[in-house]
Amino acid sequence: MYGQKVLADLREQLAHAAEFDLYAAAFDSAGIDPASIDSWEAFQEVPFVETEDLEADFEANPPEGSLYTAGAMISFSPMGDDLAPMFDTADDLDYQASVNADVFERAGISPGDRVLNTFGYHLFGTGLLVQRGLEELGAEVFPVGPGDSEQAAAFIQEYDVDALIGNPSFATKVGDEGASVEVFVGGGEPFTSIPGYREEVKDALGCDTAVDYFGTRHVLPIAAETTDENGLYVSSEYAIVEIVDPDTGDPLEPGERGEVVVTHRRKDGFPLVRYRTGDLAELERRGDDLVLPDGVIGRTDNRLKVKGVKLYPESIPAVLAGFEGLTGEYSLTVTRPESTDHLEIRCEGSAEEGELAEALADRLIISPDEVVVVEDLDRSGVFDERY
Amino acid sequence: MYGQKVLADLREQLAHAAEFDLYAAAFDSAGIDPASIDSWEAFQEVPFVETEDLEADFEANPPEGSLYTAGAMISFSPMGDDLAPMFDTADDLDYQASVNADVFERAGISPGDRVLNTFGYHLFGTGLLVQRGLEELGAEVFPVGPGDSEQAAAFIQEYDVDALIGNPSFATKVGDEGASVEVFVGGGEPFTSIPGYREEVKDALGCDTAVDYFGTRHVLPIAAETTDENGLYVSSEYAIVEIVDPDTGDPLEPGERGEVVVTHRRKDGFPLVRYRTGDLAELERRGDDLVLPDGVIGRTDNRLKVKGVKLYPESIPAVLAGFEGLTGEYSLTVTRPESTDHLEIRCEGSAEEGELAEALADRLIISPDEVVVVEDLDRSGVFDERY
Repeated sequence: MYGQKVLADLREQLAHAAEFDLYAAAFDSAGIDPASIDSWEAFQEVPFVETEDLEADFEANPPEGSLYTAGAMISFSPMGDDLAPMFDTADDLDYQASVNADVFERAGISPGDRVLNTFGYHLFGTGLLVQRGLEELGAEVFPVGPGDSEQAAAFIQEYDVDALIGNPSFATKVGDEGASVEVFVGGGEPFTSIPGYREEVKDALGCDTAVDYFGTRHVLPIAAETTDENGLYVSSEYAIVEIVDPDTGDPLEPGERGEVVVTHRRKDGFPLVRYRTGDLAELERRGDDLVLPDGVIGRTDNRLKVKGVKLYPESIPAVLAGFEGLTGEYSLTVTRPESTDHLEIRCEGSAEEGELAEALADRLIISPDEVVVVEDLDRSGVFDERY
Repeated sequence: MYGQKVLADLREQLAHAAEFDLYAAAFDSAGIDPASIDSWEAFQEVPFVETEDLEADFEANPPEGSLYTAGAMISFSPMGDDLAPMFDTADDLDYQASVNADVFERAGISPGDRVLNTFGYHLFGTGLLVQRGLEELGAEVFPVGPGDSEQAAAFIQEYDVDALIGNPSFATKVGDEGASVEVFVGGGEPFTSIPGYREEVKDALGCDTAVDYFGTRHVLPIAAETTDENGLYVSSEYAIVEIVDPDTGDPLEPGERGEVVVTHRRKDGFPLVRYRTGDLAELERRGDDLVLPDGVIGRTDNRLKVKGVKLYPESIPAVLAGFEGLTGEYSLTVTRPESTDHLEIRCEGSAEEGELAEALADRLIISPDEVVVVEDLDRSGVFDERY
């Protein structure tokens, strides 16, 4: 899926990873020698690292964990109920800035553009990382942070700001305060995976371009849209992405839907190797590019198999959010009346049932046997009543 | 007061300043040619820029003002009731980082040290500027920002953090939560100008070194202490400092007390030339260094002349804060009973009057005729009843 240049970088990155106890032990017990990884298939033999592995490692080696790398910044990200530390060296920050600069440029931000950055800088450091990318691009950054949509809107209007970057829900509020920009870059929340949401944000901000930007605190960015607004292109200079079957871990072919697995292509501090994000997406090949056409469409937790097909209830709220009349409450019930699975989805509010059924079938891959819209829902949640 | 190297830099900086309408007009009407400034005395003929000049300039050239320089960051600082924009180019940020790196190193922070940064990053950008200096030094920064002293204390304890940087009042809270560090760098509030405050902060944080760091959003730093804790050394690589008579603007000799006037030695965006800060300090020469021995001891606003000596009531609260039993409320009354000024200071709470009188005389330069400590104050404020 990736060429020799990527493989050479991955060999180097895995050799670096093997300097850390966590990976050294994992590679050892899987019989992996980073130097001998000469094919994509060989790379896919490398063991995954899961959130549970990281949690156990923090527990066993408090507080930094065994992936600690002395460097320039220690910031944090939520992990379970806790905050887990995250390490960046000066080189990490520089390289990440250059990658983000390219991503922001493809998203429609130009050198000299004024950009209001509403990501938070404190604790997680996200705003900081974004600012560095924007500076590297040569943009002029307003480091306003989150929280005050009225003030953000006033700055945009007064200073004729070209672009806004931040959470889409906050951006909508900023737009509702009367601000308009040419470009919006949205991240940190489900965005273009929610049908109609892009248009809603564009209407609020009066903008020509609104793109989806996907990353985690540990790998930022993973993928982002360009001004074409046609899906999130994997930032292969930074993040090597695979899609795997969340049950078996088997690699899936382009076009299939599964769990996003990500590997840093080049990272000194806290390197992640085949990290299972728990995020659900489809991966598509377009020429030399890899694309997540709808971005992240849910989480792989709570998946269930219906009629032999994996079904991800967590991808439903994004569909419901596309229907104005629905409250977002729903129940999904699987029964097996005559040794065949029966899938019923009941949604609260009002919507045209046929249209809703189509949207759900499109997102879930399988067609529900019944889609019902009711005014008041008796119960909400996922109910597997087959067994 | 400064040598030829500084003068050469100032000629260059003033030539840059003259590219902006605000300075071009001011230099013109004062008959100043930047290229011909060949002595310190000639430099002191350059017109001041005052906050009112900047406010008028923002008003006349909204929203950026005539000092706008396209660059890397637009952040803000309070000016009157408004927020005024402030411009930094990429070079400005880099140079400032290198200056701050030196300052932090002299303050006792070493490469590899862990530093918790509790200055805010959003809007004003102060935390960002500080982080860059720390990174340039090679320290490991926790970008936590302000607000949560309990969390800050927990990070310090868990991660064995070496140094804390932020407001002294917040640092005391962090210390009260049980955290201890080796070095504290305090700024953004009156600090070592308050008698006993340094010891209080050091006790709370259990630290060996606590230094005072002085700057404005526009010139950060202006001066800072070293591990010797014996006054704030002017950062002459960045800020050229003079002390002037706040009434006449006449330069004062080292050892005299007056208004801090500051000039950027090297700044592309929003350069300040002989900017009157309104801050009150004494400037002292020590060998090649210029030192503010007590930091900023008040503001020059509301000054009044008593017995021919300038008296700054705003320097009183810092003195009162050094006495635990006082509430901080006070009245200062000047009368002229027999054609001689009579100065009475009444303070609320409890304190030994002789000790308080001595501390006030030391700070005010003139000895009050009466210092009275009362349980309840009838009125508080400054009352000039001579006329």
